Amino acid sequence: MITIHHLGVSQSDRIVWLMEELGLPYALKWYDRKDGLAPPEYLALHPAATAPVITDGDLVLAESAAICEYVSQRYGKGRLSVAPDKPNYPDYLYFMHWSNNVQGMFFSKLAANAASGGQPQANPISTGVLKRREDGYYRYLEQQLAKNPFVAGPDFTCADVMILFNLTSLSRFGGRTIDDLPNVQAYVGRITKRPAYVKAMAIAGPTATKPSK
Amino acid sequence: MITIHHLGVSQSDRIVWLMEELGLPYALKWYDRKDGLAPPEYLALHPAATAPVITDGDLVLAESAAICEYVSQRYGKGRLSVAPDKPNYPDYLYFMHWSNNVQGMFFSKLAANAASGGQPQANPISTGVLKRREDGYYRYLEQQLAKNPFVAGPDFTCADVMILFNLTSLSRFGGRTIDDLPNVQAYVGRITKRPAYVKAMAIAGPTATKPSK
Repeated sequence: MITIHHLGVSQSDRIVWLMEELGLPYALKWYDRKDGLAPPEYLALHPAATAPVITDGDLVLAESAAICEYVSQRYGKGRLSVAPDKPNYPDYLYFMHWSNNVQGMFFSKLAANAASGGQPQANPISTGVLKRREDGYYRYLEQQLAKNPFVAGPDFTCADVMILFNLTSLSRFGGRTIDDLPNVQAYVGRITKRPAYVKAMAIAGPTATKPSK
Repeated sequence: MITIHHLGVSQSDRIVWLMEELGLPYALKWYDRKDGLAPPEYLALHPAATAPVITDGDLVLAESAAICEYVSQRYGKGRLSVAPDKPNYPDYLYFMHWSNNVQGMFFSKLAANAASGGQPQANPISTGVLKRREDGYYRYLEQQLAKNPFVAGPDFTCADVMILFNLTSLSRFGGRTIDDLPNVQAYVGRITKRPAYVKAMAIAGPTATKPSK
């Protein structure tokens, strides 16, 4: 059985959602942050020390998109993936990488603001070149969702599991908001009503807490 | 036939390398940077305005890893991919995302340094939290290459095409060097001798120039 090593308030809530969508069994091991940082026992799980991490027998696998694809293919008969012969295969591939690109800009803006010497407002680097690049990713998402109910086309896929964190939880930490993107807003409204999503967020979402037992 | 829209000195040289490895025909359309930036005709290719971009009939596809997987599956019979039933499938998935993670830290360091108000040295954000996270990705790569000749296991794959840019060209722009990573250094020495790589770099690598005709 797959164990999800869940770091409290992190991208690892995606993997709980994925398992609930696929109806697969899993064990959840919860790690609380200490002073905002992952605790040593979490960092020791994987050499890259990032979240999420799953274990499956001897396998230790990090990276949300890799975990989603691995679980979908090995345990879900590819049900939440898109096969190479499908017309929307390129869209699926693209949006499996969207989240990491957006997070690159998110981290860059945080870094620029933190490095700018205590100025109360965002640094011009953040509001200039980084915002332009970040806006490009969101502009493309908005266009896609004008044509399709889901980000990679007609069906719900791992690509939806991947991007939603960036549209919901990341804004709690200073991520870009979606107020100016009506198609993206409507999409978030629809997706967050899915029963598997509601259940997963109750278990491991940003406002969930470690089970007491 | 696939057209590679090649922005001079950019990650799009990966796609030329991929096509040479697979022995596939392609057209190359070269775009020179103006004052270091992509020209307007390049930015107009795709809503996200990133490099690389390919066109294939009506399809316009951005994102290196998406392009590599698309070409390998649709035109290369999956020859440079790893199938879900193979033992090294998780490694393949992981390292198809390594490059974007590393570039997130690269952009963040650049942003922090640029935002720090003209100090001559790297900002403490860059040398602290960002370096720790970046080092985690490289530490895992070094461990993998102690066990395997290629990054995803026994065979050359798209994952090698993806990561090499970060180990070679990115250091020209301030990316992390690999001086402290002997396995990675030996790997780069081996891979860069591949005939398809040598040919691709002569056509579109960081020291190549736009054909005169």
